[in-house]
Amino acid sequence: MNITITRTTTPKAKPDWEKLGFGKHFTDHMFLMDYNAEKGWHDARIVPFADISLSPACAVFHYAQEMFEGLKAYKAADGSHMLFRPQKNIERMNNTNERLCIPQVDPDFTLEAIKTLVKVDEDWIPDGEGKSLYIRPFIIATDPFLGVHPSATYLFCIILSPVGAYYAEGINPVKIYVEDEYVRAVKGGTGFAKTGGNYAASLRAQQKASEMGYSQVLWLDGIEHKYVDEVGAMNVFFVIDGELITPMLEGNILPGVTRDSVINLAKSMGVKVTDRRLAIDEVFEAARNGKLDEAFGSGTAAVISPMGELNKDGEKIVINGGKIGKLSQKLYDTLTGIQWGKVEDTFGWTVKIQ
Amino acid sequence: MNITITRTTTPKAKPDWEKLGFGKHFTDHMFLMDYNAEKGWHDARIVPFADISLSPACAVFHYAQEMFEGLKAYKAADGSHMLFRPQKNIERMNNTNERLCIPQVDPDFTLEAIKTLVKVDEDWIPDGEGKSLYIRPFIIATDPFLGVHPSATYLFCIILSPVGAYYAEGINPVKIYVEDEYVRAVKGGTGFAKTGGNYAASLRAQQKASEMGYSQVLWLDGIEHKYVDEVGAMNVFFVIDGELITPMLEGNILPGVTRDSVINLAKSMGVKVTDRRLAIDEVFEAARNGKLDEAFGSGTAAVISPMGELNKDGEKIVINGGKIGKLSQKLYDTLTGIQWGKVEDTFGWTVKIQ
Repeated sequence: MNITITRTTTPKAKPDWEKLGFGKHFTDHMFLMDYNAEKGWHDARIVPFADISLSPACAVFHYAQEMFEGLKAYKAADGSHMLFRPQKNIERMNNTNERLCIPQVDPDFTLEAIKTLVKVDEDWIPDGEGKSLYIRPFIIATDPFLGVHPSATYLFCIILSPVGAYYAEGINPVKIYVEDEYVRAVKGGTGFAKTGGNYAASLRAQQKASEMGYSQVLWLDGIEHKYVDEVGAMNVFFVIDGELITPMLEGNILPGVTRDSVINLAKSMGVKVTDRRLAIDEVFEAARNGKLDEAFGSGTAAVISPMGELNKDGEKIVINGGKIGKLSQKLYDTLTGIQWGKVEDTFGWTVKIQ
Repeated sequence: MNITITRTTTPKAKPDWEKLGFGKHFTDHMFLMDYNAEKGWHDARIVPFADISLSPACAVFHYAQEMFEGLKAYKAADGSHMLFRPQKNIERMNNTNERLCIPQVDPDFTLEAIKTLVKVDEDWIPDGEGKSLYIRPFIIATDPFLGVHPSATYLFCIILSPVGAYYAEGINPVKIYVEDEYVRAVKGGTGFAKTGGNYAASLRAQQKASEMGYSQVLWLDGIEHKYVDEVGAMNVFFVIDGELITPMLEGNILPGVTRDSVINLAKSMGVKVTDRRLAIDEVFEAARNGKLDEAFGSGTAAVISPMGELNKDGEKIVINGGKIGKLSQKLYDTLTGIQWGKVEDTFGWTVKIQ
């Protein structure tokens, strides 16, 4: 399929590169592609970034039949533009689509669409360590029909947002509240899929934690409220007695690209890595016995987000004196080093945009 | 707050009243109202029905921060226009808003907005038994920002759709597949709230059931996969040994307005009504012993939707010979009779639009 490109005649002023923040600024263009049963995915086009116009009856507004992905383009040390494991995002995209009854996308074409759009807006990729161009592909159900069933039509959109360094002020471990009332996901639900409903469901608990002075929520499983699932919108890792432990993928946890990268990277460093069910009580017990060495979240935005304190029912544990741990720092440095082209990519994770 | 009214200068042709279906046709106008932190809800207006224009970065497209309600306006036997228990929908609206971190709406004003819009489009309320004007209030998060947190801005919209008689061909009980893999909701999640994510999560199981020749899915609880939750997008009732049993509200079930009406109506008829946990095994055991008299779903669209067959892991039970049961029929006739102004409303459920 051909991608037609219509360039803007009124490029926007660039934002202050030192005050980008996350997800607030958008580039000059976006990618759009339509779906219907007769034509399948069709009319792939890059057009000036603009509002989209939809019937108020569209399925996405009522039944949240929608999915998204998130990845980044980086300006490497040698000046080239790189993506990090985009194939993994596209693979997950289709897993989400399957769960949400959204039509599959062609993986090769989707990668091509991402690359083409980033190239069109390449002067929006920020310079400077830690900064990047966040890429947000998403699909929404556009059928103007109020019945609860899969939409007959869809819009696939990719937008780009230049984002600042996540740790512009240095890495400060955050305080985490162990949530025991609200649930993010359960086996048989949509926890493994990157769909809006999971995030909508998480807002109330995040708000509650925030009101109590905590940055994020540690989610426990929805069945027994016993096992660790995720932290905020990230996967979660604990270093207990030198072993790196992360919850196994059982359908309720997002199979994070950064999660997978951390596991592989840690293994290559000779660290013992285990993915299994991990009870929150085991984490607290390890802390009491001085065996909880480190804890962190992993995700595209922060890469590694160390936790400095956990609060469960009022019992607080401080992790590694509230400082980032050795392994966390090493994983962060190596992973971002690979992303920014400063550390040799022996895994073949980076993809150059030619 | 004042509602400004801008009437269309190009009214649409009315659809064929005998082929309305559900949720396909929309009236000439819609209600809109904006929210931001400074002004709260403001700029309430009725305008010609039209597409809405939103940034592709809006929170609703990515994180499904959205809610909706559904109720109907009826043309009563005496020609007056009536709503059915709209206060209950508005009360639930604010319960959903609370769970989804969406700002509360003023109940009296919301009822006024519904009434005003229906009055503006009153020539769209279909004549004829069973037909009605479906009212769909909904709120979407409009902040053009990709961070996962409650939106700073919202759009409240009400659209109207004339709908045909649900049982134009007479009431035929439907075949139901007992779902044991996919889960709709779990305690601590959003099951009690009318938010898009619940419906998005339900699509895959409905599709699976449909492919197997079943109309709807019977949802079991997300924890033990043992207790009955809902059927399709409806609440569920069983008549076992003369007793009307419905799952209790524990946070994972929608507190349906029709559910509440059925409970109160049945009680007033002298029927023993119990809301409690009901194991699917108990339902099948009752069927084996000849004690499962009737089973039906309840909701705004169908009012009462009798089930004729249940299939669980291949074991099939036929309910009341595949015909609608006596109590189901009586509840349907009385409830729709009250809605259409043919049966005296001793409950004070109907609200006239003056």
